[in-house]
Amino acid sequence: MALSVGLNRVLEPAGVLPQAAWRLDASPAIGPDEVRVRVRRLNLDAASYRQLAEKHEGDGERIRAEVLGIVERRGKMHNPVTGSGGMLIGVVEEAGPASPLAVKPGDRVATLVSLTLTPLRITDGLRDWDGLSEQVPADGTAILFGRSIVGVLPDDLAPELALAVYDVCGAPALVDRIVRGYPGSPAVAVLGGAGKSGSLSLAAARRAGARTVGIVRDEREAAALRTGGLADRVEIADARNPVAVAAAVGEAQVTVVCVDVPGCEHGAILATAPGGTVIFFSMATSFSAAALGAEGLAADVTMLVGNGFVPGHAEFAVDLLRSTPAVRALFEARVAGD
Amino acid sequence: MALSVGLNRVLEPAGVLPQAAWRLDASPAIGPDEVRVRVRRLNLDAASYRQLAEKHEGDGERIRAEVLGIVERRGKMHNPVTGSGGMLIGVVEEAGPASPLAVKPGDRVATLVSLTLTPLRITDGLRDWDGLSEQVPADGTAILFGRSIVGVLPDDLAPELALAVYDVCGAPALVDRIVRGYPGSPAVAVLGGAGKSGSLSLAAARRAGARTVGIVRDEREAAALRTGGLADRVEIADARNPVAVAAAVGEAQVTVVCVDVPGCEHGAILATAPGGTVIFFSMATSFSAAALGAEGLAADVTMLVGNGFVPGHAEFAVDLLRSTPAVRALFEARVAGD
Repeated sequence: MALSVGLNRVLEPAGVLPQAAWRLDASPAIGPDEVRVRVRRLNLDAASYRQLAEKHEGDGERIRAEVLGIVERRGKMHNPVTGSGGMLIGVVEEAGPASPLAVKPGDRVATLVSLTLTPLRITDGLRDWDGLSEQVPADGTAILFGRSIVGVLPDDLAPELALAVYDVCGAPALVDRIVRGYPGSPAVAVLGGAGKSGSLSLAAARRAGARTVGIVRDEREAAALRTGGLADRVEIADARNPVAVAAAVGEAQVTVVCVDVPGCEHGAILATAPGGTVIFFSMATSFSAAALGAEGLAADVTMLVGNGFVPGHAEFAVDLLRSTPAVRALFEARVAGD
Repeated sequence: MALSVGLNRVLEPAGVLPQAAWRLDASPAIGPDEVRVRVRRLNLDAASYRQLAEKHEGDGERIRAEVLGIVERRGKMHNPVTGSGGMLIGVVEEAGPASPLAVKPGDRVATLVSLTLTPLRITDGLRDWDGLSEQVPADGTAILFGRSIVGVLPDDLAPELALAVYDVCGAPALVDRIVRGYPGSPAVAVLGGAGKSGSLSLAAARRAGARTVGIVRDEREAAALRTGGLADRVEIADARNPVAVAAAVGEAQVTVVCVDVPGCEHGAILATAPGGTVIFFSMATSFSAAALGAEGLAADVTMLVGNGFVPGHAEFAVDLLRSTPAVRALFEARVAGD
């Protein structure tokens, strides 16, 4: 509680944290432990952009107008329908004397906390954005609190690549920690192993000594994983079909859910050995489906809410990317395809 | 996967587990590892009963008709609005030769898996129920799968009391396991400490060597907790107010959320020390609020989905009730008040 969490920036309702707030004060003057960032680019959350694009039938002008309206009304880019935000990159403009963040003016940074809690002001009307992609060139200011997370962009990686890694960097760090808690060479299954968080989780699990199986949805994803050799075994199964998942996995000590569709809880639980751990990284996870599912299956498994923060997680994920060519190739293909 | 999880009982949609199914086959003939129970009483989930009572404006006849209709249509008492079920008590009628459950015909039992996955047939039209309480006298049959959980009712406890304990028995067992994972005498905070799962969690934490604080919502609950001496410290705070919760708790190694209202995630996270654990037992928990909240607060805490199953959990909870007069008094008052 010693460091500020942005309570002074909450305009309404009073008493909640910035993420739960309807409206934040995004004024650029900073408090003693705050940092002001000159914004260069927003990276909208995929679910948020999809909702906007569908609502406006792909009309870039209208999508842009709605994003501007949300930021104007709420003081943050917090999609009121999806509840999600995204991240941003920019340059540190001013750091308060009491800020604990390891940044200085001029540093190129990415914010690793959600846009749903980041005070944001847009000053260029998003004139350089056509509204047709999640990547939003922007000018304006954003505020980081004392208790926040920010990553300095590595010189050897394109900003888009670094941002894509930072977006999911909590996953490999937590997988590393959990896998090392099991003796020997535990079996680790990653549902959605060919995605961003999935491929990093596979790489982290292997580095931590695990035997790995990647579960993917089709032959195309399976081929991508096999080519890179990212998993010891690759299987195709519908992650929403518990019986198919359990049959494909066999039995895992640690099961990692990186599939962003609802209904993957039961398969993950069923595929996990007694005493094992399920890590849910998908935002589509249903708390009650997980809790009641484990009870209904009499499954003695530990179920973790995938926390996006583990100390050192950004450096850990970038290091995995640098040292695992298959992960890097997968990310570069993703970024190029965006 | 060796023991059946009831897939053969799923009528639609195919391929899902019984809890996720729309409709189950509730026919009374059992398979080799199933058990048939003669139903004596249903204990509807509180949220489910509240929804039914509000919809039908407290009209017992209409509430009863809707419960009968749900069981008839779905083959289980799975409220389609709340998604919740409840439990039942009855007498074992027949156990298949391959059943691993430690029960025999004639045993009085409570099912410890949710009614949302239990094949159920009602044969008496619920004629002995006035529709005005969650406790539903009933005649009919229920089926337990090979992989299931059932508790024999203790002779020294009224069935209603045993059922109330079994309903929340996963909480104290998991609290015990987590608290014992911390060295020395960790600080444990229980939000909603005066409720059923909350009071058992406080008793379990103390027995495991913790210093405890119970957070309650008003002076009446505080007095109840203080009288029983169930917590080392009792504080009043609104569990949905993160700043108030953190101030009341101080800092806990383990924070247990037993408050059944939405919006308690951030307070629990903020009140937990780095390296600590938050255990969410409330079905009102939002997965995304927890995940994004911890990230937004840069909180290095482990967040657990409260699993309703830990081996030996029923006996553990009953033993806590027997040996902790304050817990027993609280449960008896609750049961009498129902």
